[in-house]
Amino acid sequence: MASVVTSASMSLDGYIAGPAESGFELLFAWHNNGDIEVPSADPRWSFRLTAASAEHVRGQLAEFGALVVGRRLFDLTGGWDGSHPFGVPIFVVTHKAPDDWAHPDAPLTFVTDGLESAVRRARAVAGDRAVGVAAGEMARQALDAGLLDEIRVDLVPVLLGGGTRLIGDLADAPVRLGTPVVRESEGVTHLRYPVVRAPGV
Amino acid sequence: MASVVTSASMSLDGYIAGPAESGFELLFAWHNNGDIEVPSADPRWSFRLTAASAEHVRGQLAEFGALVVGRRLFDLTGGWDGSHPFGVPIFVVTHKAPDDWAHPDAPLTFVTDGLESAVRRARAVAGDRAVGVAAGEMARQALDAGLLDEIRVDLVPVLLGGGTRLIGDLADAPVRLGTPVVRESEGVTHLRYPVVRAPGV
Repeated sequence: MASVVTSASMSLDGYIAGPAESGFELLFAWHNNGDIEVPSADPRWSFRLTAASAEHVRGQLAEFGALVVGRRLFDLTGGWDGSHPFGVPIFVVTHKAPDDWAHPDAPLTFVTDGLESAVRRARAVAGDRAVGVAAGEMARQALDAGLLDEIRVDLVPVLLGGGTRLIGDLADAPVRLGTPVVRESEGVTHLRYPVVRAPGV
Repeated sequence: MASVVTSASMSLDGYIAGPAESGFELLFAWHNNGDIEVPSADPRWSFRLTAASAEHVRGQLAEFGALVVGRRLFDLTGGWDGSHPFGVPIFVVTHKAPDDWAHPDAPLTFVTDGLESAVRRARAVAGDRAVGVAAGEMARQALDAGLLDEIRVDLVPVLLGGGTRLIGDLADAPVRLGTPVVRESEGVTHLRYPVVRAPGV
């Protein structure tokens, strides 16, 4: 079955967004600090990456088959104008679908019966590819539900001092992870942590 | 002049201690997860480390010439019973020296006129070696005073969900760091970040 993965750029002090949705230019500076152009699925823009980060991003682009995000991220990004850089189906967990969504033909589905339902539907379309779950509150729900297989962190050398945390408010801490796979780059360290589950969970 | 460095074991979500001073057995598991015995300065105990972590710890033991800690850490550890594993002079920043310190002959000095004074005194005895400043509130004060040169994080694959943060409450965020020197190990990733200062600061 498709593995479920959360992936985020994070400050050294553990934030995926700074106070009042600040800091994105720092958290995502590594998307544009190299010489290697990696096209996104959106023809309007590309990544410009170091060699190590290019390998990392190409892997992500090939590996993810569907995404699950929350309404907050959907609103914050304007639903990526209907064109997410990964170019895969997106399931938006929300209490109520918006009435005025401007891109009804985009591969984007509003799911009103919760995270687990969204992951189930994402898995159905992802096939063998991974399901990406947005960091923060969605990743917290996936972890608490025992659905999360891996946490990928693009660790950025900055202290933001506050903001949105990687995995929301954990219901059941501490959570043990495995030793990460590490890929060093410039201005970012790519880390992939397996989630370690207690036997039988 | 001696560089000023803070060094801490930290959870992936940014905590150097879990809620209510919990989680130390997880944060410091890497001190005892390998086959290589590295003696501390305290004859009562040794590290047992992987090869990569042994190299890291031997470097720290050789490199630090004095330490600056806060009263909270001093109280929490019982002043290391007067025998810190690094075996170097320690300066404890406190409002008032304790009346009942049981190890008056230990190389430990109570400093009642603040962090900057403690760093000055620590530098004087450290010579060419580094001054270590405890993470948390002491590191925050050192960073805000422009005294901190490097942040070393032993990043541990666990989520603690809350607790004591790496660098207290920053007065002036964001703080930019440089790309880290990375040393991979088992159950920990050793990261050394230079603090990037604005010109003239």
